[in-house]
Amino acid sequence: MTDQIDTAPDQDDEDDFGLPPRLFDDVLDAVEAGDRAALEALLEPLHAADIADLLEQIEMRDRRALLDLWSDALNGEVLSELDDNLREELLRTLPPEQLARAVRELESDDVVDLVEDLDQDRQEALLGALPAHERAAVEKALAYPDYSAGRLMQVEVVRAPQHWSVGEAIDFLRHGEGLPDQFYHVILVDPRMHPVGYVGLGRILSSGRQVRLQDLTEDSFRTFHVEDEEGAVAYAFNQYHLISAPVVDDEDRLVGVITIDDAMNVLGEELGEDMMRLGGVAGEAVMSDSVRETTRQRLPWLAVNLATAIIASGVIALFEETIGALVALAVLMPIVASMGGNAGTQSLTVAVRAIATRDLTTKNLWRVIRREAAVGLINGAVFAVVMGLVGLFWFGSPMLGTVIAVAMVINLVIAGLSGVLVPVVLDRLGADPALASGTFVTTVTDVVGFFAFLGLASVVLL
Amino acid sequence: MTDQIDTAPDQDDEDDFGLPPRLFDDVLDAVEAGDRAALEALLEPLHAADIADLLEQIEMRDRRALLDLWSDALNGEVLSELDDNLREELLRTLPPEQLARAVRELESDDVVDLVEDLDQDRQEALLGALPAHERAAVEKALAYPDYSAGRLMQVEVVRAPQHWSVGEAIDFLRHGEGLPDQFYHVILVDPRMHPVGYVGLGRILSSGRQVRLQDLTEDSFRTFHVEDEEGAVAYAFNQYHLISAPVVDDEDRLVGVITIDDAMNVLGEELGEDMMRLGGVAGEAVMSDSVRETTRQRLPWLAVNLATAIIASGVIALFEETIGALVALAVLMPIVASMGGNAGTQSLTVAVRAIATRDLTTKNLWRVIRREAAVGLINGAVFAVVMGLVGLFWFGSPMLGTVIAVAMVINLVIAGLSGVLVPVVLDRLGADPALASGTFVTTVTDVVGFFAFLGLASVVLL
Repeated sequence: MTDQIDTAPDQDDEDDFGLPPRLFDDVLDAVEAGDRAALEALLEPLHAADIADLLEQIEMRDRRALLDLWSDALNGEVLSELDDNLREELLRTLPPEQLARAVRELESDDVVDLVEDLDQDRQEALLGALPAHERAAVEKALAYPDYSAGRLMQVEVVRAPQHWSVGEAIDFLRHGEGLPDQFYHVILVDPRMHPVGYVGLGRILSSGRQVRLQDLTEDSFRTFHVEDEEGAVAYAFNQYHLISAPVVDDEDRLVGVITIDDAMNVLGEELGEDMMRLGGVAGEAVMSDSVRETTRQRLPWLAVNLATAIIASGVIALFEETIGALVALAVLMPIVASMGGNAGTQSLTVAVRAIATRDLTTKNLWRVIRREAAVGLINGAVFAVVMGLVGLFWFGSPMLGTVIAVAMVINLVIAGLSGVLVPVVLDRLGADPALASGTFVTTVTDVVGFFAFLGLASVVLL
Repeated sequence: MTDQIDTAPDQDDEDDFGLPPRLFDDVLDAVEAGDRAALEALLEPLHAADIADLLEQIEMRDRRALLDLWSDALNGEVLSELDDNLREELLRTLPPEQLARAVRELESDDVVDLVEDLDQDRQEALLGALPAHERAAVEKALAYPDYSAGRLMQVEVVRAPQHWSVGEAIDFLRHGEGLPDQFYHVILVDPRMHPVGYVGLGRILSSGRQVRLQDLTEDSFRTFHVEDEEGAVAYAFNQYHLISAPVVDDEDRLVGVITIDDAMNVLGEELGEDMMRLGGVAGEAVMSDSVRETTRQRLPWLAVNLATAIIASGVIALFEETIGALVALAVLMPIVASMGGNAGTQSLTVAVRAIATRDLTTKNLWRVIRREAAVGLINGAVFAVVMGLVGLFWFGSPMLGTVIAVAMVINLVIAGLSGVLVPVVLDRLGADPALASGTFVTTVTDVVGFFAFLGLASVVLL
């Protein structure tokens, strides 16, 4: 990634593709001066995604002033690009007629994306602004489950009877009304509207008019069901390098098409969410979230962590007398727990990622468990030697060094094993392995670490 | 994500797109029986990505037996799909003539991907197997920096003079030799080979033969420079919803094209790497890595963590007398450190993600810092009350409760601030914020947590 924070001139090159800091200043100057023409001149050439970024990054009062000055900045495309929370906030304040104008510009899947999180009333109001046929398409999509292929697809499809030739397809496309903005394949259907194959536009263009479409169909052809999970769709797009794929209903009839940009979005979101969950943050945390929203995302996990930290403290409390007799134990015990927690997090991070990419299955689970145990043993042995020496030289006690060394090996092996087993078991139970594993694993390593170290010490040293 | 570990029949539905567990058993049976025909019949219908997954997931001895039985399983496409470490291992064992056959099947960008990590000798041997013009293309790509647009692009481009009509373009494509397998735009060039725009194939197909290509060019047109970082390219593809984009050299001449599947790959890799680094794992850790490789990925970070844990222990050691006088402090002190570490990790995770997506910039840094301080204060206050009560009821000491409560507020505010400031400063210094931030932040929260709690206790309680 290019350096984005640095604003030194030599770094601020064209490779950045981000928004030039100067633009922010110019926009804010125009807003402060109330100069609508200048503001329009600055924003008009920008891509909707960049305008959305700008709106996300400026202060709330500047955002209000900007939209008061030139409310057209918030058109349909910009709305589609905004962070969810900020979008909801702005949708609440937007006058109904402007909202209606904004949604009329969008394709059906973008409208679905825009309205699916709104409450019933606002959804109704927004849908009422659409032409009847588009409203029907959006309502149909909303009837599919959240995060399904049906929500993700666009209903505008380009299809052709399977017996057509290249020439017939080109003639059809030349006279076709309402073709989607972007399409990459012509989907071949049988008389009952079942998709039977597809032909990339490149193949159509590079073949003679008389060639039959059927002879040009591509191997990569795969269909999705409307109720397939969007995560599974994104996985398949990535695994099989798909560009677009038809979506079918229960009767296997063609009802829509998913394109790679939608799949890429989902893939990015799912990976980002897994990362957040591993970091103990609930939901899609973004920079434009408010203090209230941010607290809501973080407090629950901290509460769970507090409960598990108290359990670990309970283990320490069992050995109060031992610690009273040898305070060096209190000094060294966090080291064993911390090393275990880190080794567990490493193992866990790799396992969660592999479960998501379907690279950790029943077929290699046993091998991975053996590997984690072996790695835990090796790392444990290395750091056992180091800590043994620390115990010896810092506190002058060979036995204290031995105790911490043995506890280190035990905890790093347990860390490696629990780092794999906890997410696998959670996944098998239907829970999200990214969300809950961290707490379980660090609880295990804290408890095992304190218990092994203090327990051994109480037996050996006193 | 669909459940992948569970093999219960009701879960093992078609939505999974993964490999059915039964297939593994059938393949391994065929390998054990030495039944080459059966093995071929099982593997032939699979997508190369699925064969690669299968090879990655089976045990090493089974993999060897399989490839001994039917070495054609390892064709060029399968090699492209394999995990890096496993691929290198297999490339070492593959007979040269089979390797040569494998690479001849691939497009130039896939060959680059395959050979870039090999040592000089093996690279030479492999390149020698290619036809001269393809070899030249690969060598040219290898001259670009690692992780650059030049490495990512394919040199096979479809271009047309800017003055052409739709009909001229179609005639050219129909008679064109050596068109790439997949392409989505015809790139318009001026007489000096500078790209001046592009036209989507859908627009060409849906326009009359006499329409000028220039009148069909699309707004999304953006070019990359061969030395642009691949991360910046992936960012732009995602931000601006690109499908393909031309790549130019220093003289702004068209030299290649990057397509969305390459960008999607990079995006997934970068996100996965950030996730690994946040989890303290160096490099692209995958399930097929060996014990040795896995140890190499994890040991360095554990060593850094050990050093920081010893620093934290040093802080505790300053208060040995205090702890000796009141052992309850040893029981409670890990709670303050643990809560700080977790709050810091939350704040850090969100910040690292936002730096990568360019949503945390100099423009909103100050607002984000204020937000983190506020969230730390609120969460700190909530858990201060809880811990105050725990201190009071567990140890019957209101003052102990007060001390832990105050330490909690201090540490959670510091955690929130360091979670943002550490990655931002690292990024500004040119370091990877995902890699090193975790250690810094938890060191800060450990030191602050222990110091605040034990320091306050030594002043107030003794």
